[in-house]
Amino acid sequence: MNFHVLTLFPEMILQGLDTSIIGRAMAKNIITLEAVNIRDYTTNKHKKVDDYPYGGGAGMLMQAQPVYDAWKAVVEKINAGKGKKPRVIYLTPQGKTFRQSMAREFAEEENLIFLCGHYEGIDERVLEEIVTDYVSIGDYVLTGGELPTMVMIDAISRMVPGVLSNKESGESESFSNYLLEYPQYSRPEIWHEKRVPEVLLSGDHKKVEEWRLEQSLERTRKARSDLYEKWVEENQDYFIKKAKKEARQRKKEQKKKAASEKNTCIL
Amino acid sequence: MNFHVLTLFPEMILQGLDTSIIGRAMAKNIITLEAVNIRDYTTNKHKKVDDYPYGGGAGMLMQAQPVYDAWKAVVEKINAGKGKKPRVIYLTPQGKTFRQSMAREFAEEENLIFLCGHYEGIDERVLEEIVTDYVSIGDYVLTGGELPTMVMIDAISRMVPGVLSNKESGESESFSNYLLEYPQYSRPEIWHEKRVPEVLLSGDHKKVEEWRLEQSLERTRKARSDLYEKWVEENQDYFIKKAKKEARQRKKEQKKKAASEKNTCIL
Repeated sequence: MNFHVLTLFPEMILQGLDTSIIGRAMAKNIITLEAVNIRDYTTNKHKKVDDYPYGGGAGMLMQAQPVYDAWKAVVEKINAGKGKKPRVIYLTPQGKTFRQSMAREFAEEENLIFLCGHYEGIDERVLEEIVTDYVSIGDYVLTGGELPTMVMIDAISRMVPGVLSNKESGESESFSNYLLEYPQYSRPEIWHEKRVPEVLLSGDHKKVEEWRLEQSLERTRKARSDLYEKWVEENQDYFIKKAKKEARQRKKEQKKKAASEKNTCIL
Repeated sequence: MNFHVLTLFPEMILQGLDTSIIGRAMAKNIITLEAVNIRDYTTNKHKKVDDYPYGGGAGMLMQAQPVYDAWKAVVEKINAGKGKKPRVIYLTPQGKTFRQSMAREFAEEENLIFLCGHYEGIDERVLEEIVTDYVSIGDYVLTGGELPTMVMIDAISRMVPGVLSNKESGESESFSNYLLEYPQYSRPEIWHEKRVPEVLLSGDHKKVEEWRLEQSLERTRKARSDLYEKWVEENQDYFIKKAKKEARQRKKEQKKKAASEKNTCIL
């Protein structure tokens, strides 16, 4: 996967994504990251890339020409004249809300171009011409497109095969199956007089799994009933099995009780 | 506003927020940003901060001790023994979804501590002890808490009085009133055969405002009907006024028509 970021702050993109998992994937060449400075493409002799908005209003607007030419340079390099045009993601509050399912979808592309707006935004005409996907990472106002681009690149990278080791990939499931994470504990066993839950020390893997699933379900139900409902819908089996198991256990206990009462009678 | 970030990657935080508006506010001392390396507080002689999770599972967990001691050092420095404890924000998919209204609320604090998890997460017991706010920036899985912390700091900073100039502060309204931004255009008037909409060149401020509001409404209705509904609820007046205006215009035209017909008759 090759990420190409069109931005006025290339250092910010490069430095911000250099850590841990993503940095490792870049070192292994599973993903590449290129930050293209839009300012390098302006034809303005003072290297200006912005101007006042028509109709008045606060702040400055990024102009069409440098954005278009930066995009064109990247596309020409990628395609060398052939193949389909890569998707161009523009970060904007107007966009479709970014979710894990979208991260998985984007991870299947070979190239992705991100366009980072700054100031008051970008001339509408160049957006119409080059952008394929308008995306928002959430309902809040940010200074520019750089931080949300980094967030998206992080989330998408984790879905690219080979970026996470087998061991790690488990964690990426947390949103895939709609459930929030269960609580986790590490050494020491007692910290600030708080004990690690007994079941986690039992060595009984099946019980640990059951406990964790129950914790996840409980947390999700409390914090995110929308996600909980989705899980329930797709996992009716779980509740049927659970109910059956509980019924079996009740029967067993009744039998035991009956047997012990019988024994009492005989004696 | 003073931001204190507890992290294993302090450089990432400092470099990533150094640009444009936020960097300027830091230079003016309206906001300060401190990145505290959790690793500096471990009592482990190999500087280790993580260990295996009890009960098994993928990856490593950040341990309670270094996190707690890093937090304690920050709190003691802030309070110097007195005053209320600052809020501690932990970035986690379990959290309440971050929104513009939350950014405004946090902007009223004097100090905010962010706790960035990494690896598989943090020992539950220290979270229980120090965290006041569990926050998620969206429904996607990220490698660590650093990027979402930077996103939150950017959004919150913009709400701190004095960070944005008066000119800029207008833009921060875009989510406050639920409406998405209208399209914007800058020079030249014609680019790639696309013209700037006539009304923006008219110099008629009232008409420009009306056009922009209509564009915003139309975009919001199409892309985010949830936000549109909220706006409609709070702005019934707009539609009443608009309907009245349209009624007046219709009447005027009818009168004109009637008059011209009358004239025709007389002639």
